[in-house]
Amino acid sequence: MKQPVLFYFDFSSPYGYLASLRIDAIAAKHGRTVEWKPILLGPVFKASGNSPLTSQPLKGSYAKHDFVRSARYFKAPFVLPDPFPIATVAAARAFYWLHDRDPAQAKALAQRLFARFYGEGRDIGAAEAVIDQAAALGVDASALAAALGDQTVKDRLKTEVDRAIQLGVCGSPFFIVDGEAFWGSDRLDQIDEWLRTGGW
Amino acid sequence: MKQPVLFYFDFSSPYGYLASLRIDAIAAKHGRTVEWKPILLGPVFKASGNSPLTSQPLKGSYAKHDFVRSARYFKAPFVLPDPFPIATVAAARAFYWLHDRDPAQAKALAQRLFARFYGEGRDIGAAEAVIDQAAALGVDASALAAALGDQTVKDRLKTEVDRAIQLGVCGSPFFIVDGEAFWGSDRLDQIDEWLRTGGW
Repeated sequence: MKQPVLFYFDFSSPYGYLASLRIDAIAAKHGRTVEWKPILLGPVFKASGNSPLTSQPLKGSYAKHDFVRSARYFKAPFVLPDPFPIATVAAARAFYWLHDRDPAQAKALAQRLFARFYGEGRDIGAAEAVIDQAAALGVDASALAAALGDQTVKDRLKTEVDRAIQLGVCGSPFFIVDGEAFWGSDRLDQIDEWLRTGGW
Repeated sequence: MKQPVLFYFDFSSPYGYLASLRIDAIAAKHGRTVEWKPILLGPVFKASGNSPLTSQPLKGSYAKHDFVRSARYFKAPFVLPDPFPIATVAAARAFYWLHDRDPAQAKALAQRLFARFYGEGRDIGAAEAVIDQAAALGVDASALAAALGDQTVKDRLKTEVDRAIQLGVCGSPFFIVDGEAFWGSDRLDQIDEWLRTGGW
């Protein structure tokens, strides 16, 4: 039984979005599935002493240009949303709540949220925005609304974020392939080769 | 007359080293030359509010692993030197002093310094170490030793570093291709495509 590829990302991460469009196909080539694991970059940055890329001098303006250029390179729809970056705690909590009920629907929600945010440039930070997108997939809106304030759901996400930091997750996207860690959408070629060869 | 590709790097940068092994061949495919431009990451980090990758929590241990794994992926000789990172001011000054006399020899010195540092893991921080490597290429050791303390040579490097920061250089390696900025050895595929197509 082959292990799934673990795919850690923050919904607010442009490179996480770009990777989300490619990782499933890469894994599938090698008979693997992908476990999507949204996290929050806030606690990760706190643990690693970092800050959002776009708020950094020099790197910030480069990054904004690179997001757009990389998206065009990979033929991915992309609008830099405003506001950006956003808090994605509601999106991530909704994901795990749904995942524990229907993993396929949770992935569909994640893809839909990414498409809404980066494809259309629409805010997905507010709980209402997340619930609207989930409802469009047939999720019970009032059950999700209640879940987003539930301590068990909050703890579920916190556990995932803590676990990610323990595993060394230092940014988004971040992948774990048979115990091997890869950081960045730039590492998808190496992940492809790692899955093909079993490592080098 | 096609513009050369500008290749900014710090001699202490592992990804700069990995890029140095590939950028000339990529440029040559498209009838371009590469202008190697060593800089100092110290002033760049000061301008961008960053610090050496390996000194950062989470990112540091990941980076050390990724250097080695990426080197093996590209079949590049690689030893993580000790001490690391190092001050590369002598190497960079020697490069520009030599460049103003013999550009081809300056590039040969840069390649030799990278091979010494990352291929063999030997320190290239001290002026004496740089002079030894230059002397092995036939450079006049006493003339270089004198040049390394010369204010004109110091200013030459400072001007290059200031100019790089003005151009937005935020790390190493950093490339400028017909005015378009690319950061990271991960962007070599995009640079190849940019040179082939003229941009997208």
